[in-house]
Amino acid sequence: MRPSGRAPDQMREIVMEAGFTRHAEGSCLIAFGDTRVLCTASVETNLPPWLRGKGKGWVTAEYGMLPRATHTRGRREAASGKQSGRTQEIQRLIGRSLRAVVDLEKLGERQITLDCDVIQADGGTRTAAISGAWVALRIAVDGLMKQQLLTVDPIRDKVAAVSCGIHNGTGVLDLDYAEDSTAGADGNFVLTGAGNIVEAQVTAEGETYDEEGLLRLLRLARIGCTEIFAAQDRATGR
Amino acid sequence: MRPSGRAPDQMREIVMEAGFTRHAEGSCLIAFGDTRVLCTASVETNLPPWLRGKGKGWVTAEYGMLPRATHTRGRREAASGKQSGRTQEIQRLIGRSLRAVVDLEKLGERQITLDCDVIQADGGTRTAAISGAWVALRIAVDGLMKQQLLTVDPIRDKVAAVSCGIHNGTGVLDLDYAEDSTAGADGNFVLTGAGNIVEAQVTAEGETYDEEGLLRLLRLARIGCTEIFAAQDRATGR
Amino acid sequence: MRPSGRAPDQMREIVMEAGFTRHAEGSCLIAFGDTRVLCTASVETNLPPWLRGKGKGWVTAEYGMLPRATHTRGRREAASGKQSGRTQEIQRLIGRSLRAVVDLEKLGERQITLDCDVIQADGGTRTAAISGAWVALRIAVDGLMKQQLLTVDPIRDKVAAVSCGIHNGTGVLDLDYAEDSTAGADGNFVLTGAGNIVEAQVTAEGETYDEEGLLRLLRLARIGCTEIFAAQDRATGR
Amino acid sequence: MRPSGRAPDQMREIVMEAGFTRHAEGSCLIAFGDTRVLCTASVETNLPPWLRGKGKGWVTAEYGMLPRATHTRGRREAASGKQSGRTQEIQRLIGRSLRAVVDLEKLGERQITLDCDVIQADGGTRTAAISGAWVALRIAVDGLMKQQLLTVDPIRDKVAAVSCGIHNGTGVLDLDYAEDSTAGADGNFVLTGAGNIVEAQVTAEGETYDEEGLLRLLRLARIGCTEIFAAQDRATGR
Amino acid sequence: MRPSGRAPDQMREIVMEAGFTRHAEGSCLIAFGDTRVLCTASVETNLPPWLRGKGKGWVTAEYGMLPRATHTRGRREAASGKQSGRTQEIQRLIGRSLRAVVDLEKLGERQITLDCDVIQADGGTRTAAISGAWVALRIAVDGLMKQQLLTVDPIRDKVAAVSCGIHNGTGVLDLDYAEDSTAGADGNFVLTGAGNIVEAQVTAEGETYDEEGLLRLLRLARIGCTEIFAAQDRATGR
Amino acid sequence: MRPSGRAPDQMREIVMEAGFTRHAEGSCLIAFGDTRVLCTASVETNLPPWLRGKGKGWVTAEYGMLPRATHTRGRREAASGKQSGRTQEIQRLIGRSLRAVVDLEKLGERQITLDCDVIQADGGTRTAAISGAWVALRIAVDGLMKQQLLTVDPIRDKVAAVSCGIHNGTGVLDLDYAEDSTAGADGNFVLTGAGNIVEAQVTAEGETYDEEGLLRLLRLARIGCTEIFAAQDRATGR
Repeated sequence: MRPSGRAPDQMREIVMEAGFTRHAEGSCLIAFGDTRVLCTASVETNLPPWLRGKGKGWVTAEYGMLPRATHTRGRREAASGKQSGRTQEIQRLIGRSLRAVVDLEKLGERQITLDCDVIQADGGTRTAAISGAWVALRIAVDGLMKQQLLTVDPIRDKVAAVSCGIHNGTGVLDLDYAEDSTAGADGNFVLTGAGNIVEAQVTAEGETYDEEGLLRLLRLARIGCTEIFAAQDRATGR
Repeated sequence: MRPSGRAPDQMREIVMEAGFTRHAEGSCLIAFGDTRVLCTASVETNLPPWLRGKGKGWVTAEYGMLPRATHTRGRREAASGKQSGRTQEIQRLIGRSLRAVVDLEKLGERQITLDCDVIQADGGTRTAAISGAWVALRIAVDGLMKQQLLTVDPIRDKVAAVSCGIHNGTGVLDLDYAEDSTAGADGNFVLTGAGNIVEAQVTAEGETYDEEGLLRLLRLARIGCTEIFAAQDRATGR
Repeated sequence: MRPSGRAPDQMREIVMEAGFTRHAEGSCLIAFGDTRVLCTASVETNLPPWLRGKGKGWVTAEYGMLPRATHTRGRREAASGKQSGRTQEIQRLIGRSLRAVVDLEKLGERQITLDCDVIQADGGTRTAAISGAWVALRIAVDGLMKQQLLTVDPIRDKVAAVSCGIHNGTGVLDLDYAEDSTAGADGNFVLTGAGNIVEAQVTAEGETYDEEGLLRLLRLARIGCTEIFAAQDRATGR
Repeated sequence: MRPSGRAPDQMREIVMEAGFTRHAEGSCLIAFGDTRVLCTASVETNLPPWLRGKGKGWVTAEYGMLPRATHTRGRREAASGKQSGRTQEIQRLIGRSLRAVVDLEKLGERQITLDCDVIQADGGTRTAAISGAWVALRIAVDGLMKQQLLTVDPIRDKVAAVSCGIHNGTGVLDLDYAEDSTAGADGNFVLTGAGNIVEAQVTAEGETYDEEGLLRLLRLARIGCTEIFAAQDRATGR
Repeated sequence: MRPSGRAPDQMREIVMEAGFTRHAEGSCLIAFGDTRVLCTASVETNLPPWLRGKGKGWVTAEYGMLPRATHTRGRREAASGKQSGRTQEIQRLIGRSLRAVVDLEKLGERQITLDCDVIQADGGTRTAAISGAWVALRIAVDGLMKQQLLTVDPIRDKVAAVSCGIHNGTGVLDLDYAEDSTAGADGNFVLTGAGNIVEAQVTAEGETYDEEGLLRLLRLARIGCTEIFAAQDRATGR
Repeated sequence: MRPSGRAPDQMREIVMEAGFTRHAEGSCLIAFGDTRVLCTASVETNLPPWLRGKGKGWVTAEYGMLPRATHTRGRREAASGKQSGRTQEIQRLIGRSLRAVVDLEKLGERQITLDCDVIQADGGTRTAAISGAWVALRIAVDGLMKQQLLTVDPIRDKVAAVSCGIHNGTGVLDLDYAEDSTAGADGNFVLTGAGNIVEAQVTAEGETYDEEGLLRLLRLARIGCTEIFAAQDRATGR
């Protein structure tokens, strides 16, 4: 039995509130159950120096967590003066995942930054961030197209992510904090709308796993992403 | 005429959503028009070293702004590795303002940290932060009393803050970004429920002002705070 | 009775030693009693990037305190790797105060940096810094005019600052450390030679205050600034 | 054809020089072809605060790269003042991988730090680091047992890591820099001597992959790790 | 001919103003010509952790330069967030030089910190700092003895420092900035009152030197230090 | 008797392994007994801003120590976020020493960076670094000449460095860690192949020394450098 009473292949409720903030070119407050992440997409024509004049753009991400998003208050990274290794690892993953479905040449010489800030954390913040960031990105690109700043859509596909893990010997989907902190192995899968894999990453925590375990988690991830893709379609009006 | 069409002594709509997040001992999403600040109160028994064993507590605050809370994206302070002077000035003001209405001895040996994170900015973020932080603090202290961890209420009064300024020669209340960036002078007043002043601060931007100007702004601030106090009462069920 | 035996509206002795150092374009060692601040004005033609090519200049300030300016040694900010919130708040105030009396367009494309370093602290360092920085600035601009680099004087007026506070229920002028650390409320006023207000800031420390208290402090500040203006005239030979 | 002329499932030459330095409790200079990483194990009885008094130990890792380990000189992280996101991600992976085969309770209240410093880089530095760090750890623990500081071996199994990727549509093992920088997908597998998976991580770079691709890479990783395990046995005299 | 018209073995005027500031346990504003350094000695009973409980004390130094001490304004180290290599090298030298004449066991469990802040720079700031810091230290220790906190004098001897260099082929004493920036070789000697060497350091700048050159500079240093010792005696009333 | 059993004027075994790494334009793993330092020379055409367009080049150095190069593990400077004063002092010395034998105009508009990383430390790391860095520099410049990027040799002479000290009253050459940590005075001499002095620096540690002591150490240094020069000749095939 899962702590939440969910079936092993059952996602938490997915809520996506597009347009949650008004200044960003795209925004989405995404919830996977009690995990809530505000994702905004900012379009800038000022490219990083190493990309200027190459006829293509860039998509990058930053991740943060409000100090009291968690059960006990964490130290504010701006106050401690640096981003933790975990933060950097996550924001690199978000950026990589979105770039996998964007044609940077078609994007033209502009940078889109996805800021993913965790308002409330209950496990799976990085996968919620990827899934919500895609919505913010989609909205921002739709805006560029509406303004005729782009005539060809640079987004090739949807992308979504979900966590899976082995809890008490059972493969489970979309771990909440209670499961996450006691799972034997847990991982994150990033999939495209077409079903391909962008990133697979599974870590043993305490107990190692085998090939069959890896595949079982991948199958769970497919189930979860299908639900997320549907929510993305609704949120972006497709 | 004000850019927003408001009367000189008219506040923007005040919305306070108490309990916006679930892990914090107190929380409030406060809006002054399009300015939205999430305030959480975290109760910790771990006091800063210089206060331990003195039989009293501490109330402090941290302030942050999501990178795309503003019209154009700002640099994430965690990434730049330090909090700006503006951030530090604001969080010092918030902490001072709340401590003015708290009896630290009655609070006992615990620290309450108010995290004020700006989700969307349209002028007046520091005054919204103070006003919302009081609600989060009130809820957190109510919780301590309900759990019998406190038997005497350490909060002596309400506290609220509002910005005022001189715009095109007229004193105006609760400036939004359009006014704020063109005001001749602007200031912030922090008042107690009893009508006393906790902090008055008025800065000339371009044109200096006189004693009468100072008093006019104070009178506007009283009008604004009366409205905020009423909203605080509603939000905390008093 | 004040700890120093002064009357409530009595300043400490003001001493301004213009030209204290020889490399700076302008310099002044200012003393308000035992508080001594070395202010230097450095003229540079290298503007910050965001101001270049706009046909106008900039006036900015930095503030520091020697580690043993105070009763007990403080940590050297260069060693701790960052400027405290207090330092940043003060240097922002100094810069703002001076810019209030300078016509930046008349200054032309140059930056003047006022470095205010506290040699000895006994309360009121920020107000001494503002008052002395004006002298250093005046001398530097006089030099530019003597060298014909400027033909029109960009300085519109004098500016001075003084602290006031409520100590044992009485409004007092120019608080020294003994008063400052026990005052119920204390503030700083920045005034122009013409008597206008550039900045008013009064903070309750322990006890709040009312409108009449605010006005009483402002009246004390006027008395103090009159004396400072006279000292500025003597120091700059006007 | 691979740039190096190797067969798809062919490792580069593996060289492990145990005892390369003399102060560390364990050390190994490991080479995967031109990639050379110096791994040292330092045993300390001073545990991190959060682990003290819990009757168990800790294994952690730090990773670094000499500035000219690479084709063009990189910035020294000590000079730039922080470790990059990549560095932090790698050192977290190394620590996690080793802890997966260590019984921390049997290790007792001591910390072993694995420093992995890349002397020369030609792709696969993180996998060489994990594989070499295990040797340094094994030697350090053997030393503790020889000194009777440990009576039960806390190391449960060997651990090794290798990179795999899809290059020109073909799955290839142990990518060198030339392949790594042009691979469509690349990943790292960390396996135990018993053949279980500690960590699987495969990232699409430009082209996504499917389940069959994931499994093909895992099979290649098994081939590579078998060779590494044999080299570990020789290096530690088992 | 020297730029200043001085004879090769002629010091600049030495002025030592003991007791320049009032909070420090000892202080001295020292001038070597236009070079002026404020040295303060702070006595603290709080030893650094690695020295506690060993029955002895510590003498250390920090060095800084006001931003406009120099001909052109330098960046404030507190603002740039770190002390330069030059600053650190100098403060290590000052501390070492003073410890050479102090019996740390006789000092007891207390730390004396010498802060040396350059008010105006014209070459030789580090040697002026050492020479002035000794005066501040002497005064601070005299104070401890007067208060009976020390009964045996822990200071064994005087210490002074002076710069020497080879300028246009001639050995010269106490270089000012004009000479320093064009010298072929320059060095610093730290000598005890008894004539022994604490530190000798001579660096070739452009042209190397030989053994005879080294000795010539040492002889010049002896001449300079004799004068400094006399000034130290006057300043400390011996 | 020396702890190592060496005669007072006896160097440890010197080993120089040129070409230890393959990416750098020049490299040398130098050993003075158990002290081993990897020196690499990186040639870059990108000059620091303050040197551009002046028709000359620059030679600079960076120094680091692997965390477990020492008897007990030291903190990684990249992790602590800054280079220690000692590190900065050493890398400044290395750069200065090499520039003393290089004609920067003949080098042309290029920068050569010498990275000196201590693999294992047993005293004398800075002198080994200078001596080995010269070899790496020589090889890099030979490469530039072979490629005809330079037609005139910018290196004027060899440079070597060695430590000397007074141990138990006897002058000794090339101190190892056991001697270094108990020496009464110790210093470093940097000499040119022609026998001139580039840098002499001798520090009293506990006991001061006199002119005769200084000269004795210089004579020892000459003996040591003669051996190092011979090793440099062999390593660079001269």
